[in-house]
Amino acid sequence: MFNGAATLRRLLSQPGVVRLIGAHNALGAKMAERANFDGVWSSSFEISASYAVPDASIITQSQHLAVARSMCCAVEVPVIVDCDTGYGDGFQFAHAVRRFEEAGVAGVCIEDKTFPKLNSFAPGKQELASIDAFVEKLRAGKRAQRTRDFVIIARVEALIAGGDIHEALTRARAYADSGADAVLVHSKSATIDELAIIAKSWDRPTPLVSIPTSYYQTTVEELEMLGIKMVIYANQGLRCALRAMERAYAEIMRSGSTASIEDQLWPMKAVFELQGLTDVEPIAANAISARGGQ
Amino acid sequence: MFNGAATLRRLLSQPGVVRLIGAHNALGAKMAERANFDGVWSSSFEISASYAVPDASIITQSQHLAVARSMCCAVEVPVIVDCDTGYGDGFQFAHAVRRFEEAGVAGVCIEDKTFPKLNSFAPGKQELASIDAFVEKLRAGKRAQRTRDFVIIARVEALIAGGDIHEALTRARAYADSGADAVLVHSKSATIDELAIIAKSWDRPTPLVSIPTSYYQTTVEELEMLGIKMVIYANQGLRCALRAMERAYAEIMRSGSTASIEDQLWPMKAVFELQGLTDVEPIAANAISARGGQ
Amino acid sequence: MFNGAATLRRLLSQPGVVRLIGAHNALGAKMAERANFDGVWSSSFEISASYAVPDASIITQSQHLAVARSMCCAVEVPVIVDCDTGYGDGFQFAHAVRRFEEAGVAGVCIEDKTFPKLNSFAPGKQELASIDAFVEKLRAGKRAQRTRDFVIIARVEALIAGGDIHEALTRARAYADSGADAVLVHSKSATIDELAIIAKSWDRPTPLVSIPTSYYQTTVEELEMLGIKMVIYANQGLRCALRAMERAYAEIMRSGSTASIEDQLWPMKAVFELQGLTDVEPIAANAISARGGQ
Amino acid sequence: MFNGAATLRRLLSQPGVVRLIGAHNALGAKMAERANFDGVWSSSFEISASYAVPDASIITQSQHLAVARSMCCAVEVPVIVDCDTGYGDGFQFAHAVRRFEEAGVAGVCIEDKTFPKLNSFAPGKQELASIDAFVEKLRAGKRAQRTRDFVIIARVEALIAGGDIHEALTRARAYADSGADAVLVHSKSATIDELAIIAKSWDRPTPLVSIPTSYYQTTVEELEMLGIKMVIYANQGLRCALRAMERAYAEIMRSGSTASIEDQLWPMKAVFELQGLTDVEPIAANAISARGGQ
Repeated sequence: MFNGAATLRRLLSQPGVVRLIGAHNALGAKMAERANFDGVWSSSFEISASYAVPDASIITQSQHLAVARSMCCAVEVPVIVDCDTGYGDGFQFAHAVRRFEEAGVAGVCIEDKTFPKLNSFAPGKQELASIDAFVEKLRAGKRAQRTRDFVIIARVEALIAGGDIHEALTRARAYADSGADAVLVHSKSATIDELAIIAKSWDRPTPLVSIPTSYYQTTVEELEMLGIKMVIYANQGLRCALRAMERAYAEIMRSGSTASIEDQLWPMKAVFELQGLTDVEPIAANAISARGGQ
Repeated sequence: MFNGAATLRRLLSQPGVVRLIGAHNALGAKMAERANFDGVWSSSFEISASYAVPDASIITQSQHLAVARSMCCAVEVPVIVDCDTGYGDGFQFAHAVRRFEEAGVAGVCIEDKTFPKLNSFAPGKQELASIDAFVEKLRAGKRAQRTRDFVIIARVEALIAGGDIHEALTRARAYADSGADAVLVHSKSATIDELAIIAKSWDRPTPLVSIPTSYYQTTVEELEMLGIKMVIYANQGLRCALRAMERAYAEIMRSGSTASIEDQLWPMKAVFELQGLTDVEPIAANAISARGGQ
Repeated sequence: MFNGAATLRRLLSQPGVVRLIGAHNALGAKMAERANFDGVWSSSFEISASYAVPDASIITQSQHLAVARSMCCAVEVPVIVDCDTGYGDGFQFAHAVRRFEEAGVAGVCIEDKTFPKLNSFAPGKQELASIDAFVEKLRAGKRAQRTRDFVIIARVEALIAGGDIHEALTRARAYADSGADAVLVHSKSATIDELAIIAKSWDRPTPLVSIPTSYYQTTVEELEMLGIKMVIYANQGLRCALRAMERAYAEIMRSGSTASIEDQLWPMKAVFELQGLTDVEPIAANAISARGGQ
Repeated sequence: MFNGAATLRRLLSQPGVVRLIGAHNALGAKMAERANFDGVWSSSFEISASYAVPDASIITQSQHLAVARSMCCAVEVPVIVDCDTGYGDGFQFAHAVRRFEEAGVAGVCIEDKTFPKLNSFAPGKQELASIDAFVEKLRAGKRAQRTRDFVIIARVEALIAGGDIHEALTRARAYADSGADAVLVHSKSATIDELAIIAKSWDRPTPLVSIPTSYYQTTVEELEMLGIKMVIYANQGLRCALRAMERAYAEIMRSGSTASIEDQLWPMKAVFELQGLTDVEPIAANAISARGGQ
């Protein structure tokens, strides 16, 4: 069977940037795989949006796990799960690591904010955990994993919470030194400038990860040149889908039919292929015959 | 609290066509409400696609229920659930009716195919239940509901399964006479012609429902003139989202950034509003203060 | 439909002690109702045990909700849900309150420990939230409820965490004054003595709740004389079931059959009645006939 | 990691009877393991009872899967899942086989009744699937499994549905010849007589399985002498728990305290050990220190 963690480790050890895109269900994961992304980011933001609840620790570990599991059933690319603050302290995170590992997830990411968290791009105050508390949690997670390859990414929220580059670097180093398999320094700056300084100062072998939501002008080539190993497009899938739905819905309401937007719709046949319906037909026909149906 | 079934009954009793659009999660329901659709069709096809599994009775009643419940938490328009063949015989359907009713669903729709079903637009053989068996199930559902307003729609699959207009009409009448609150004659024809004959021959007070997927040229006004009371755009939301994702993903892979598609993405802020994140911020700030945070 | 919150309010306002017993699934709730308990305590301890995971904030809000919902479908007595520390701060608790209310739950209980929590009878350190932080959460919950009758119980863990009677009373009063509908001062003492002092000093109209796990010698009459209004046997159902299973399993292994323990087993017929199987038989027979079965 | 299917295969290939006991949650599985049963039967009857719904195809495949998964997380003995009629035709069963396999289940059992099913001990009519239809389903399941060791048990309901020994044997042989890894001929007779004839006539290498609910006088030694390889005590755990709960609840109501039944309760400490709470305490203490708690 497909081994997501081993594949992820191989991607991280070979040359080139690893590119992931966000998803909130198995279908999104399938679309990512189909578009040749290297993997899927099971996005806490997207999942909370899919439930129409705020990205504020409302969605639970068991719900994250259910989504991740359905993704791992659907694709043969690594799935990395955005675990917010890790669902508690070390013990709770360790428990979660085992559940995600069993589900076939390649790795998880936890961030150094306090529970309950708020989305990093939301307005308002953000509170960081102490370095000691976060390192404790990280280590509990690393001790808990049963397979060698499972990846734990430590996400530094210092810049998000109003801290400076020095604090971000201090935290990033502490997490790398405590066993994090990769470090993600998150930023909501419109430019790459502050991250560039951090990347250039990076003096650990631990790979760096970037989420270019706000500094979207920066290309993957530029990120690679700065030493970034993994790039995650964390939310664009959801956001382009919503834009398309908004426009299509307005047009259906206006024109009274879908005729004018049919060329903007995937054919039913394409969806059937993606969901594997074409495999069912011969088996279903046999079954109808076998049970004496018409 | 919002009463979806009462609202649906009111919509059905007043002049004008009732327009629903398909969704597979709470966010889709929210988008439907925002675009002023009258209600949400919790689509079995969309839900199975969202799990990347075939639309062939793989998704269970408990999964349909979980989706419906999350929708009912999110919107104040009626949610109608596509219950495939009703999850068994009369007893199982009666059980399901109570669960959906408790979840706040306005109504459910069952179709007269045998279990397990195949999507109506899939190639291959389709098998119909006997009229007696379906009527038995329908009646068990009607007896089970606890509130007066809850709606059960009977879906006639005769035209899908290769039957003729006469068979479709016979079934439609039998279901209306057995207590169905609305009748949906499904068709995969590229034109409205066969449905038009059925609609013109309709001699029951029970409202008719249409899903104009294949006969998409027909407008809502034309459907209304034929006597159709409810129109369901059952799958276009998913299909336009997939098209948009396919294009955006290809462009990100090609150009190495999201810069060229930023205008096709909803702003983060718009998603935050839709998911209610803006409500959280003041409460979260208070909480951080109250627990002695920075 | 049955209104658990209204029933609970009525029980609290009329003379006599209200008695609840713990459960971790719908069947346990059914057994409680059948034995004439006034209501069901959806026990976080029992639920975590049923999953064979520690009672340490491993089980999530969505899992608690699923259990509570299945209970409310099964019984017509009030269900009160043990919500541990409330799943976060005020915002998260408010969200949970609405979900439990929609599920038909009569009330919830939150305790003033920090997240993640440890079972109150576990050895080791317990950490309390500040009074301000807990009051903030309590108030957010009370503001969130949509129905007048929904009950929020505040649980004081001061005695569990090593505090004295003075601290317990201070907290109990603060919570009552902040809108708690009942106050539960938890104790792991083998005698009622410390609780008796608190109960005698109680100078608020808010009813007091007791969980006599460790001070099990005290009868319901004695508790009532002290002014306790509600008594919860929080875990005895699970514990007697486990003892019975342990003995029966050993005997089956020893004797090689169940012959010697048949008189200790409920008849299949009794289980069928409890789960409502007797209702299915005539409907199932009809269905088999209707679909042309033998 | 523990491999349930490989362990089950080993048990089936070595001398001696394999003994399983029924459970409906992870805790029951844990009790089975603790009592030295060879494995766990994830009982559809027990699970439906735990939800207080009839054992009549109300509980869905996704609910069975969730229970099975929680069991596989908790124990290191094989878990066999009672899959009723297999959740549809061949395609649906094949899908289920993959999901159960991924969950770590050692094997599944399907019965040759039509969907929706009724419990085999319920009064009333039972309808069998045709041999062809059931063989089709069985083969689809065997083709779907990805690991060599995964076990599919075919359950013959002929005797339950009023058929004779000849029909039971014909079906048992057809299923064995179609790839079933074991065959369970179910019986509700109070004696072993009819099963004994079948067992003595058995002329296939496929192991036979027995569920001695009604013929409980027969010992495991007698079953072994008849050539039965696996014995499943499918429901006694639940039934002894219910009896114990009934008695304890009545006594609490009568006496007004639990004092008189304390010796019939497992100690809290024993439950803590079973659920692993003892592992949490040192980690929790560290975490409290690390985050600067008292």
